[in-house]
Amino acid sequence: MKEHGDDLFHYPNIRLNFSSNIWAHADLSDLEAHLCQHIDIIRHYPEPEPTSLEHLIAGKIHVSSDEIMVTNGITSAIHLIAKAYESRRHIVSVPSFSEYPHHGGQGCLRWICNPNNPTGMCVSSTELYPSDDENELFVIDQSYEDYTTATMLRDEDIVKHGRMILLHSMTKKYCIPGLRLGYLTAHRDIIAKLREFRTPWSVNSLAIEAGKYLVTHDINVLPSIDWMRKETEWFRESINQMEGLEAFPTQTNFFLVRLKHLNSSLLKENLATKEGILIRDASSFEGLDDHYIRLATQLHEENETLLTCLKQYL
Amino acid sequence: MKEHGDDLFHYPNIRLNFSSNIWAHADLSDLEAHLCQHIDIIRHYPEPEPTSLEHLIAGKIHVSSDEIMVTNGITSAIHLIAKAYESRRHIVSVPSFSEYPHHGGQGCLRWICNPNNPTGMCVSSTELYPSDDENELFVIDQSYEDYTTATMLRDEDIVKHGRMILLHSMTKKYCIPGLRLGYLTAHRDIIAKLREFRTPWSVNSLAIEAGKYLVTHDINVLPSIDWMRKETEWFRESINQMEGLEAFPTQTNFFLVRLKHLNSSLLKENLATKEGILIRDASSFEGLDDHYIRLATQLHEENETLLTCLKQYL
Repeated sequence: MKEHGDDLFHYPNIRLNFSSNIWAHADLSDLEAHLCQHIDIIRHYPEPEPTSLEHLIAGKIHVSSDEIMVTNGITSAIHLIAKAYESRRHIVSVPSFSEYPHHGGQGCLRWICNPNNPTGMCVSSTELYPSDDENELFVIDQSYEDYTTATMLRDEDIVKHGRMILLHSMTKKYCIPGLRLGYLTAHRDIIAKLREFRTPWSVNSLAIEAGKYLVTHDINVLPSIDWMRKETEWFRESINQMEGLEAFPTQTNFFLVRLKHLNSSLLKENLATKEGILIRDASSFEGLDDHYIRLATQLHEENETLLTCLKQYL
Repeated sequence: MKEHGDDLFHYPNIRLNFSSNIWAHADLSDLEAHLCQHIDIIRHYPEPEPTSLEHLIAGKIHVSSDEIMVTNGITSAIHLIAKAYESRRHIVSVPSFSEYPHHGGQGCLRWICNPNNPTGMCVSSTELYPSDDENELFVIDQSYEDYTTATMLRDEDIVKHGRMILLHSMTKKYCIPGLRLGYLTAHRDIIAKLREFRTPWSVNSLAIEAGKYLVTHDINVLPSIDWMRKETEWFRESINQMEGLEAFPTQTNFFLVRLKHLNSSLLKENLATKEGILIRDASSFEGLDDHYIRLATQLHEENETLLTCLKQYL
């Protein structure tokens, strides 16, 4: 098992969490009340395939319901695509999300995370279309699409293209990582192939109910993207001005920091156990080493607290 | 996608549900209250692997925590075992649960459902151990273990054996099919191999929380097995006495019925749309045809209602 962020369960006394890229201050009270009103759905099997939710989302994003597939989080979608196309050669630019597959074969499947995790940088849309080579398939993981002002691919365009798969994370859009919910869009032939590999009942009843509620009620739980980008730039520049730290450019709410003299794992442990602050040790990302951490913007006063605490360890 | 039972979502006005083998009258109010008190865990990622729940269950069933693996329902476990051992020849006696894999290869993996779905019959424990052939592996799906008085395999014995995997369904034990929760036990070498195939965060936060609550508080939501078996025998014999119906013997709370003159799909549609009663059309089980239905025992007065309604269609 690779190391991942948001490992709160390892540390009992965390007061500030910069380790997940997901906005930590979402107001989910309406959704939570709705789930509690319908908690008795745990008594019945979910739909074997989450068809009703697929119909709702399809209507919302202007694609047909055979051009979309809902999964038990985006990581399940990634593993399912890897299985459906396991005979292909898989190409991942690093550093990137660590769950993408790495193996060789016939034809090519290119995994692109855009905005990229852990760097927060985006690729221009001209680079995101496969070449004329019919053996090339592109998977674009757009999980962080709601955390950037950069231009993103549109589902209406993707589904016309026979060699692209676009991944969306409802987990990240609605700040519900505990529920596991994501979907992908693609040409109907690709969707038909992928659905053969989906495990029945893999998305549970409460996740389906939450998805229906959020989509139907057009819920937005994120702060304005303008505020988030502005705060991130202030946060990043403040880090950059500190001796021994280099904060890299980003187009989202999170960014990489190089520790010139410190060890990332040691810094993480110190902050977690002594300060109650969780950061992401980025050493487990392929292409990075134990001199990298990843930080995600939180409330202004929380970002200030991290800056103050960090100074003690430099 | 194969047809499955408990397809309530297809029919808006069901008042009685005989289509799922799971006891429909479980009192889940304590669990539901607990989940609502902790509903805010949807804001955080679950553990990538549900280690804390594995520790709790391991302690309860007297195995080590490296001899157990929790999954997103038993169907996920089945698909994961199929992938881990895909090079083997898979053997399934029919009729049996339709998610077991059917493909050939080196070595042999035998899938046994015990008690068997859809027949409700059990195999004696002497038949449940692999032969001396080291290439033989047995997967015993013990999902319905709490719905029978027959002798079941014990985890303490299984984990010492290098060629057996035992599947347990918390979904069925605790009547929470909406949450998706199951686990398997096996020798630690098998568990280590299977864990390599588990998708991170595949079990969501609420399922993990429910599992911890149920195991820690030693919750039992099923009626006494003696009552259930007695009621099932009365129900089955009453069916058997009806002209044109043959109800087969069972050792659990559910049983197969052969319709001598009726079509199973037509009978199901009539009962669902005209009577608000859901039964399981068993024609999708390999080895059966469109003259079989499966019924699960409910409350005595509900079973009586079904008998009365059935008479109109014979």
